[in-house]
Amino acid sequence: MISKNKFKYLRSLKIKKYRNQANQILIEGVRLIDESIKANARIQSIYCLDSFLNNINNKSFISILEKSNIPIDEIDIDSMGQLSDSINNQGVIGLVDINLIRTCDYKDSSQLILDSISDPGNLGNIIRTSDWFGFKNIYLSNNSIDPYNPKVVRSAMGAHFYLNIIEIDIIEHITNLKNNNFKIIAADLDGQNIHNWTPPNKWAIILGNEAHGISDEIYKLIDYKVTIPKHGHMESLNVSMAAGILLSCIKYKG
Amino acid sequence: MISKNKFKYLRSLKIKKYRNQANQILIEGVRLIDESIKANARIQSIYCLDSFLNNINNKSFISILEKSNIPIDEIDIDSMGQLSDSINNQGVIGLVDINLIRTCDYKDSSQLILDSISDPGNLGNIIRTSDWFGFKNIYLSNNSIDPYNPKVVRSAMGAHFYLNIIEIDIIEHITNLKNNNFKIIAADLDGQNIHNWTPPNKWAIILGNEAHGISDEIYKLIDYKVTIPKHGHMESLNVSMAAGILLSCIKYKG
Repeated sequence: MISKNKFKYLRSLKIKKYRNQANQILIEGVRLIDESIKANARIQSIYCLDSFLNNINNKSFISILEKSNIPIDEIDIDSMGQLSDSINNQGVIGLVDINLIRTCDYKDSSQLILDSISDPGNLGNIIRTSDWFGFKNIYLSNNSIDPYNPKVVRSAMGAHFYLNIIEIDIIEHITNLKNNNFKIIAADLDGQNIHNWTPPNKWAIILGNEAHGISDEIYKLIDYKVTIPKHGHMESLNVSMAAGILLSCIKYKG
Repeated sequence: MISKNKFKYLRSLKIKKYRNQANQILIEGVRLIDESIKANARIQSIYCLDSFLNNINNKSFISILEKSNIPIDEIDIDSMGQLSDSINNQGVIGLVDINLIRTCDYKDSSQLILDSISDPGNLGNIIRTSDWFGFKNIYLSNNSIDPYNPKVVRSAMGAHFYLNIIEIDIIEHITNLKNNNFKIIAADLDGQNIHNWTPPNKWAIILGNEAHGISDEIYKLIDYKVTIPKHGHMESLNVSMAAGILLSCIKYKG
């Protein structure tokens, strides 16, 4: 069993301010913890219910934890409920280090920039997809949802531990990119067909907020507009979907 | 104000069984109702809070409802809370007809089939994206999440009213397709690069459950395996993301 102070500390990590102070977060569930181990995330401890430890279905997972020398502590069902972010928790939570980066990398010649993304599932899905397409960094405007929000982390399925997620002042960042000969790309209904478009040498693609798109201030800085051809009726695609399709096409060309 | 019986009826629509009996669902929020009107959905009534009606920001929305001759009824905050599916509801709900179809269309020469999709956000995102790429029908195995679950409907943003969502016995459906000279396609890590692959004349692409993929029984029926090339580390893409990228590539070729 864990101490009261330890429990208080773990519970504090549900709040962004304390996560950022501590550079640690909680990750939940077998699949996410397993993926995080594969990604060499620095998992400091696992907390689980007695019933989780004694469930024969979890045997191989527990032996992975033991092989990775990750300490396992039991906690009671009430504490688990307070730490967990989901109603039907699996009875297992991990404490893991994160690495907050605030500096930008102008050597990174293909960049994904997210402006004011607000939905945790969308951001998580974009992070997961960005790793699939080999991106090393994601740049996030500092008014976006916290990338270490538990719902974002769950939805990204461990991809956080392969990528740098860098919070930036977006106007300053784009201005610096343009000064470094980057071309700025955005999705737009009137843009060039993404399937027929070849990216320049150094580029950054910007995706905007779910409801409001890209802000006017940023819109003025765009060099190329691209579009995913529409064959149906809907006004737009979901932002994570648009991101994935654009990255898939650009990566195929680039 | 609405009658007790009307309220009971509306509340019953939170349950799949009653939705299917009534062929009606509730839709929530300005954007979804607005998109549904654009899609010519048959909205029978709007129920909203007094505060919603009197909010000056909702004036243009309310005039759209009036122009569309949709009756507006006030309900109290407690009833709204019971009907709404979200904690922070916007104070407006619509009652709309749905059109449940159980027959398959073999004239439909490019088909999307979903096997055991369980996450409402994923299914909603796939429905929205399928309309974007001009699909008229989506075939859903009968053990999938209910396509008229409120979270699915919210995530699809009105696309339900452009498409037929057809629940099927998946093995029977695929067998019939094969007898009608359709080729069955599935995503697989060892498949052909989707960017270099040209679809046959008549095809159906199958996407599987979030955790377990496609079942063994269905796997045996596959004619072509395709893949979205991976450049990073993650084991898989989110299923809605994979669906969108595959449809985008196939639509570009087809």
